[in-house]
Amino acid sequence: MRQARAVLKIETPGRGLVEITPQIERWFEATGIRNGLLTVFIRHTSASLLIQENADPEVQRDLERFFARLVRDGDPLFEHRSEGTDDMPAHVRSALTQTQISVPLADGALVLGTWQGIYVYEHRLRAHRREVVLHLIGE
Amino acid sequence: MRQARAVLKIETPGRGLVEITPQIERWFEATGIRNGLLTVFIRHTSASLLIQENADPEVQRDLERFFARLVRDGDPLFEHRSEGTDDMPAHVRSALTQTQISVPLADGALVLGTWQGIYVYEHRLRAHRREVVLHLIGE
Amino acid sequence: MRQARAVLKIETPGRGLVEITPQIERWFEATGIRNGLLTVFIRHTSASLLIQENADPEVQRDLERFFARLVRDGDPLFEHRSEGTDDMPAHVRSALTQTQISVPLADGALVLGTWQGIYVYEHRLRAHRREVVLHLIGE
Repeated sequence: MRQARAVLKIETPGRGLVEITPQIERWFEATGIRNGLLTVFIRHTSASLLIQENADPEVQRDLERFFARLVRDGDPLFEHRSEGTDDMPAHVRSALTQTQISVPLADGALVLGTWQGIYVYEHRLRAHRREVVLHLIGE
Repeated sequence: MRQARAVLKIETPGRGLVEITPQIERWFEATGIRNGLLTVFIRHTSASLLIQENADPEVQRDLERFFARLVRDGDPLFEHRSEGTDDMPAHVRSALTQTQISVPLADGALVLGTWQGIYVYEHRLRAHRREVVLHLIGE
Repeated sequence: MRQARAVLKIETPGRGLVEITPQIERWFEATGIRNGLLTVFIRHTSASLLIQENADPEVQRDLERFFARLVRDGDPLFEHRSEGTDDMPAHVRSALTQTQISVPLADGALVLGTWQGIYVYEHRLRAHRREVVLHLIGE
């Protein structure tokens, strides 16, 4: 049994979903570990992680429309506005989604369903560079 | 230190919560691992996982009523309707709950609180067959 | 490779966020494990876990205001009221946040971002004593 760890730097083009499944796969294939538990952790509170459908881009647009209506930019409810009207909504959206996701690894492949992809969900309007930590334990 | 893995097939009767704690317990007892970390992962984006109270069935009905009001079937906000008016709401409900949950295992028992149960939350209206991957690492 | 486990007892002063990062750090430092995966699990369904910004207390107050508006105490939608008007909202808030969070440990430190802290989110109005299980696997 052994473990491996790495940091992915993800450039987001502003609000929306960025799939990172391919980068994760390239990394764990290089570790040589074929069975275990892979953990993805994002080091931010205004961007988050999500497993969603990667087949139909409409799903991702609808998801974003839902969050934009649920947590409105510039909502007068929010007093924390010093970093912009999209900053506090970004923290709320992160609280409602995930900061960490673990996925079992079986015979050299993640056990994701046919339509599942792992995404960074950027909640700020502007482009950001995000750090995602990968951890794998197994053999 | 060693690991084990299995896939549960869960028949859901349509929208609502299905407790899977007993199946999980039967499985890890058979592995012989008594201390470690158990991970539950659902291979779908229109059904999810949840740890909730298993004492009062009213809690589960209220939870479902809350989600039904928050994410309305047929909401005109959603453009993705090709798979039915409950499909996009199912993706949003999944994003708001969990795709993966890990629970420590201590001396042969999950460390769940007295009233906690592990559930598959079916978000589609019709019955489905869902796949849940179990992974356990420990000794 | 080895593992360690402990239970933290957290006294909450009623609804709101209580940071537990310092207690978690003190515990894993004593285990001597420097690289691995730390899992935090809360044994309740009316309090939850959250990773949020620990810099500006305004963020936490805004977060609480958002949840208080989204899931109203005493909402007539809820039939489960035997334990108080804040009980069912507490279950819903828990479903929308986390019961478990795992964080990789690298060279003796959690890989949390600069502004990230780990919190117990008490959803009941009154003070409670909450149990949080810590599990660490690594070397």
